[in-house]
Amino acid sequence: MDGLARHTVEVCFSPRLFEEIERGENEIVVLVDILRASTSVCSAIANGATSILPVATIEAARELKKQGFLVASEQDGVKVDFADFDNSSFSFTPRKVYGKTIAYCTTNGTHALSLAGRASLVAIGAFINLSALKIWLIQQQQPVIILCSGWKNRFCLEDALFAGALADQLLESDSFWTQCDSTLAAMDLWCMARTDVLSYINKASHYQRLKQLALDDVVPYSFRIDQTDVVPVYDGVDIRNRTI
Amino acid sequence: MDGLARHTVEVCFSPRLFEEIERGENEIVVLVDILRASTSVCSAIANGATSILPVATIEAARELKKQGFLVASEQDGVKVDFADFDNSSFSFTPRKVYGKTIAYCTTNGTHALSLAGRASLVAIGAFINLSALKIWLIQQQQPVIILCSGWKNRFCLEDALFAGALADQLLESDSFWTQCDSTLAAMDLWCMARTDVLSYINKASHYQRLKQLALDDVVPYSFRIDQTDVVPVYDGVDIRNRTI
Repeated sequence: MDGLARHTVEVCFSPRLFEEIERGENEIVVLVDILRASTSVCSAIANGATSILPVATIEAARELKKQGFLVASEQDGVKVDFADFDNSSFSFTPRKVYGKTIAYCTTNGTHALSLAGRASLVAIGAFINLSALKIWLIQQQQPVIILCSGWKNRFCLEDALFAGALADQLLESDSFWTQCDSTLAAMDLWCMARTDVLSYINKASHYQRLKQLALDDVVPYSFRIDQTDVVPVYDGVDIRNRTI
Repeated sequence: MDGLARHTVEVCFSPRLFEEIERGENEIVVLVDILRASTSVCSAIANGATSILPVATIEAARELKKQGFLVASEQDGVKVDFADFDNSSFSFTPRKVYGKTIAYCTTNGTHALSLAGRASLVAIGAFINLSALKIWLIQQQQPVIILCSGWKNRFCLEDALFAGALADQLLESDSFWTQCDSTLAAMDLWCMARTDVLSYINKASHYQRLKQLALDDVVPYSFRIDQTDVVPVYDGVDIRNRTI
């Protein structure tokens, strides 16, 4: 540790529980929505999008479309009529997004983002940028809160698994410690699942929901570790890569 | 199944998440606060207490004391001056409680109880009455929500483990099914912990808190399965045994 202080890692299983956490002033919040927003945002940035503007409502997305932005927006898994993309990771191809700003509409994610936005910085976490995120967080030397978006404010397995995977890596680094039961539980769940995540996640309710909507094609990709080195970070205005 | 419908089991990791659950009208809520309220209430009823009156504030407890009730109430682990018991399971000995009504003051537990009280019935769940509770729940033929009190509305390991243990037993009975991620996670945590619960729970934050207050003497007892056949149930007024 060379005299550096260790910082806390906490996991929050739902945006509803976020306000129960005793907050300091300099935490970094890692926002997680594995299926699918946080994976899609990492994907878009990895494919060269300059920035992402998070948008809470379809009306706001429509307004930004009029202003010339590319817009990602879907309802019940179907791209809304005026949008350029649905919310799937596979939609943000380099050809479509390179050098562009995308207004990204996600009710679930934007709610969590506005909550988390009171923190100094909000990083976007996904399995596809796990190690890059870990390295960046260790460099920041600040406490970390991993905020799972969940599904309609409820606990969801895929976000909890990611929280466990990231917490595991942070605690291994010796720059962090935890005394938080959610973190311990998330790490134990990850420990059970890690040897075959896709089999494990097959029982998750949101995976089943995506299957019914035929939107589960992104699932294997969403659990593939370290596909990109980007660390998208929200500074209160938009989301940009911090590892350039 | 002999033609009987199967009912859902859901787990709620915090009272804050309880309102996110889509409620029907006839669920039974199982209220869990392993360290220590739900274990203590089971203990008191097992030792012959006629009923328990849940009380939210020390002022209300003082009022009931004046009316002649026995009162259990503590602050920071120390019995308040006018009370007859602290909140430890070991305080409710048969000699003291047999045939008596006890006003039991617990901020954490009473809050969860008042939330849960909108359900048709609220059963009190603890490891010490696990099998009796399971049998009673199977008899009721109603959906079950296992509500973890947590610690200051946050996820806590010991309540999650109990939720997993109970859900495991209910699902084994074939009278129940689940599609709830919290339930699946709780069962997996229980699966990891069950062979040596006391070692596992040693890392839990609330156990550490009790140790610091020298209140951890009840911990081994609190994780001992099937010490009693009572099923204490709250009907909106008081808590009484339903297995007589």
